[in-house]
Amino acid sequence: MDSMNAVICKDEFAKLVGIEILEHGPGRAKVKMAVTPRHCNGLGMVHGGAMFTLADYAFAAACNSHGFASVAINASINYLRAPKGAVLYAEAEEVAVDGKLGSCLVRVLDEDGGLVATFQGLSYRKGPVSAKQG
Amino acid sequence: MDSMNAVICKDEFAKLVGIEILEHGPGRAKVKMAVTPRHCNGLGMVHGGAMFTLADYAFAAACNSHGFASVAINASINYLRAPKGAVLYAEAEEVAVDGKLGSCLVRVLDEDGGLVATFQGLSYRKGPVSAKQG
Amino acid sequence: MDSMNAVICKDEFAKLVGIEILEHGPGRAKVKMAVTPRHCNGLGMVHGGAMFTLADYAFAAACNSHGFASVAINASINYLRAPKGAVLYAEAEEVAVDGKLGSCLVRVLDEDGGLVATFQGLSYRKGPVSAKQG
Amino acid sequence: MDSMNAVICKDEFAKLVGIEILEHGPGRAKVKMAVTPRHCNGLGMVHGGAMFTLADYAFAAACNSHGFASVAINASINYLRAPKGAVLYAEAEEVAVDGKLGSCLVRVLDEDGGLVATFQGLSYRKGPVSAKQG
Repeated sequence: MDSMNAVICKDEFAKLVGIEILEHGPGRAKVKMAVTPRHCNGLGMVHGGAMFTLADYAFAAACNSHGFASVAINASINYLRAPKGAVLYAEAEEVAVDGKLGSCLVRVLDEDGGLVATFQGLSYRKGPVSAKQG
Repeated sequence: MDSMNAVICKDEFAKLVGIEILEHGPGRAKVKMAVTPRHCNGLGMVHGGAMFTLADYAFAAACNSHGFASVAINASINYLRAPKGAVLYAEAEEVAVDGKLGSCLVRVLDEDGGLVATFQGLSYRKGPVSAKQG
Repeated sequence: MDSMNAVICKDEFAKLVGIEILEHGPGRAKVKMAVTPRHCNGLGMVHGGAMFTLADYAFAAACNSHGFASVAINASINYLRAPKGAVLYAEAEEVAVDGKLGSCLVRVLDEDGGLVATFQGLSYRKGPVSAKQG
Repeated sequence: MDSMNAVICKDEFAKLVGIEILEHGPGRAKVKMAVTPRHCNGLGMVHGGAMFTLADYAFAAACNSHGFASVAINASINYLRAPKGAVLYAEAEEVAVDGKLGSCLVRVLDEDGGLVATFQGLSYRKGPVSAKQG
């Protein structure tokens, strides 16, 4: 198991929320979440925290794909409309990585492929992923 | 049960994540999360999505405290340092509400009271909370 | 002169800052700023406000390209590194427009084509651009 | 002239935009801008870049008040409503500074004291302000 896989596969919070990884490669990732009543807020809509966590997991998979442990230092999410259908996807693409800082764009899509949220993440590269973390 | 309570108490995702509300009033709220291994990412740190969800729940409680259903349209979070201890708190304070848009600041604190993240949320007021939502 | 041109060409602040538009089309725009000592902050670096204004102008050109007057309601900018050379460019691409809300990604590049900042804007569509505004 | 004054007073872009500093102290600052036609966008409203620059200058003054040179790495601004009157103010308050990273909240107020925008800045502390910079 490579270092990226280790970081991604050992993510307990992603398991709790029910997120699975579909694809990943250098600077990119695609993840999926089947929407259930447990993902809803008090207004009966998918919780902003659930959509954020989905986007954040794709972000983490994309920016930890270079063999370095990166942490998020800022994330900004725009919620554009309520999702339709029973599945959400997030697709992350690193748009820049320069020295210590990296910027990543994530699109959150619903079952019909409609864009429901956009997410911009700023990552800070700490160092190589250690055996302990893996 | 008033409308704010309904919105807050019926939040299934907050239950899944293990967040409880400690205090709330007009334009403010304080919430708590006991940190467990389920809240961690693959690097063994508290997941950014868990901290975001904690802050987002405080934000929702604060901006839904006026009898109107408000939804988040943007949120930006700064992660300042890794938290210490076994509990996290989030304190939300609405800094402005003007017409349809509201802005809310949330501080995320660890067990020692140290500030670990700051969150700025932008909300959009949709209309009165209906009986159906309650 | 079409409505987009009117909105863009009458931008007095962009003139003050010294920004010119290079290209524009539906949902996209490219703008340019020649860096001078007037664009610097007290540390001798290009001012964050100047880089933001450059990105914001590209964002406005892109999201006002549909014949509707749109206003920014949130913008988040990541500063990745200090720019090199004497020119900055910003390239805006609308990644979603759904109903009233639109999301736009802007890349800020230096003279060598290096990415120095990324910008995510959230726009709100108000209505058709009127003759008065034009 | 102390180091903070040097950083603030030598800001050429703030001069171009017409911003003056009213007050500053450890972790806080208040600045002012008289609104003129030069600050407007093509829709005849105060330009988002001008409001951002005003907030950013207050942010820089607040986070450079400790004798260290700090740079912005992220800023997120919420535009709540169009300002009234002929003057804008920005009030910055550092809400956290821990190690290298600091978070700062800035409120943008119009002539009547109404809140028109909120700004959250993330700063990175580079090192002591040098004589060259002063």
